[in-house]
Amino acid sequence: MRPVPTIEQEREYQEVRAAAARIRPYVRHTPVLSDERLSERLGAQVFFKCENLQLGGSFKLRGATNAVQLLTEGAAASGVATHSSGNHGTALAIAARRRGIAAVIVMPRNSSAVKLDAVRREGAQVVLCEPGRVAREAALAEVLRTRKMEVVHPYDDERVIAGQGTAALEFIEQLPGLDLLLTPVGGGGLLSGTAIAAKALNRGIHVIGAEPEQADDACRSFRSGERVLLDAPDTIADGLRASLGVRNFAIIRRLVDDMVSVSEEAIVAAARLVLERLKVLIEPSAAVPVAALLEQKVHAPKACVGIVLSGGNLDLGAASWLTGAR
Amino acid sequence: MRPVPTIEQEREYQEVRAAAARIRPYVRHTPVLSDERLSERLGAQVFFKCENLQLGGSFKLRGATNAVQLLTEGAAASGVATHSSGNHGTALAIAARRRGIAAVIVMPRNSSAVKLDAVRREGAQVVLCEPGRVAREAALAEVLRTRKMEVVHPYDDERVIAGQGTAALEFIEQLPGLDLLLTPVGGGGLLSGTAIAAKALNRGIHVIGAEPEQADDACRSFRSGERVLLDAPDTIADGLRASLGVRNFAIIRRLVDDMVSVSEEAIVAAARLVLERLKVLIEPSAAVPVAALLEQKVHAPKACVGIVLSGGNLDLGAASWLTGAR
Repeated sequence: MRPVPTIEQEREYQEVRAAAARIRPYVRHTPVLSDERLSERLGAQVFFKCENLQLGGSFKLRGATNAVQLLTEGAAASGVATHSSGNHGTALAIAARRRGIAAVIVMPRNSSAVKLDAVRREGAQVVLCEPGRVAREAALAEVLRTRKMEVVHPYDDERVIAGQGTAALEFIEQLPGLDLLLTPVGGGGLLSGTAIAAKALNRGIHVIGAEPEQADDACRSFRSGERVLLDAPDTIADGLRASLGVRNFAIIRRLVDDMVSVSEEAIVAAARLVLERLKVLIEPSAAVPVAALLEQKVHAPKACVGIVLSGGNLDLGAASWLTGAR
Repeated sequence: MRPVPTIEQEREYQEVRAAAARIRPYVRHTPVLSDERLSERLGAQVFFKCENLQLGGSFKLRGATNAVQLLTEGAAASGVATHSSGNHGTALAIAARRRGIAAVIVMPRNSSAVKLDAVRREGAQVVLCEPGRVAREAALAEVLRTRKMEVVHPYDDERVIAGQGTAALEFIEQLPGLDLLLTPVGGGGLLSGTAIAAKALNRGIHVIGAEPEQADDACRSFRSGERVLLDAPDTIADGLRASLGVRNFAIIRRLVDDMVSVSEEAIVAAARLVLERLKVLIEPSAAVPVAALLEQKVHAPKACVGIVLSGGNLDLGAASWLTGAR
């Protein structure tokens, strides 16, 4: 049990609550699903918050909408820009369209066709760059050199963190008995927001982040206390290739209980298992916390476990790993 | 607009209402999902009642549970039996287990491995037979020759019809503005129950059944006024190979507005589209009404259309048609 919340934690929590009220007209209240046979297979009673069924196909709409709705009229008029491996880009494009402002999204060339299409369909302008953090940031700086736009960072932004925390807020309202919350970790937006909301609502709840072994900067940072940066790690979980943000790392060190990593094989098996048993499509990034239970990186035999299924954007034409004989 | 309901229709509707109260503790209240881009693609505003997320993976649990819960103590003690291509078998097995009674399920040898496993996992005894209506009925008669069990027919049974109607009852409660309801048709249990509930709640609502062209007995029966029987038709929609039941046909002639049939290609495309856009897994049978919109067999450009996604039980190991390059 942790100590009584500090004034800072209380302020962060109130920002999540305010975000929830602010974004309500623009986001879906996603269902929580569960399946007895899937729980048996995962060795715990597991409930899934289906942000893969969120508008835009991921939780990212929550943070992007909060950031865009918080802009002053003056700032909003110039439009918004970001770099994103995909889901944040789609989300920011949707959020900008709903407010009637322009959006420029810098995306790596190896983004899936589905994600590129989704961003363009929302009316945003896509600027392609080479994969990797350094190239992305350079491409975004180039955009900003010629156009004065408000940057909405995919995770290292308090408005975004507060927005992402609303998924856990809803989840715990839907299911107050959760003992443990598991989320994937890329840049740490979802995990940091989740920890703020969950620890404020229930000091006894455990919050654990899960990431691919092949992109394990968050585990290394969490263990060493120093923020480790990886450039363009290779994993099927394309949404988790980013390294922890500064703000995210600070919140995670303060509030998160543990961090685990999983194999690529377990990610694939977990996505397939969720499709077969829960009947919902998740992208590999969303399968990472499920893989943590599957590989027994997290043991919680008597716990009521909540997993945020972060997204469901997948190019079926390139996803033959999801079906067919093994 | 049809005439004022008869006493018979009112009685049938009250049975659906009673079934809804009776089965409530045993079934899931399934969500209704929608997606703007999917609606655009289908040419109407379409809402999906996700019975693929029902316990047991299909709407069949509703009818089976209603029938099993209606049994007297004496009748229940001997157990229940049925023949089924899969989902009704699983459903009856679950319903029997919940009441603590035995179940024997006669299943064709070409049932998918997933469906056979699911029935056995619920503790029911499986008796295999050759595919086709005649062989199924003979195998069930053989079981009943040696064991006195209550037969719960997969569709031609008033208790089952009333139970299946509860999905539409819930759907219209969740979404009172529906103009048109589409369901798949195999034996007609879901369609007849849906028509009873929908027409009682809203006389102006249209109810249309959709079936595979390669198993179009219901279309032929509906047009000719004579019940047409097909033996072992070949379609990927394995849940719709049965021909209309006697009771089902009578209700369908009386209450259903139209019947359409779709190609095998459209069924596959529809299942894939629902997976990609709505992010939920449906079996080919459930994709049939979606295919009817995709192939423009039903035109409803300004309508608010409801589709009951009947089931999501699919052997992923044999479903490579669902993913990969086309």
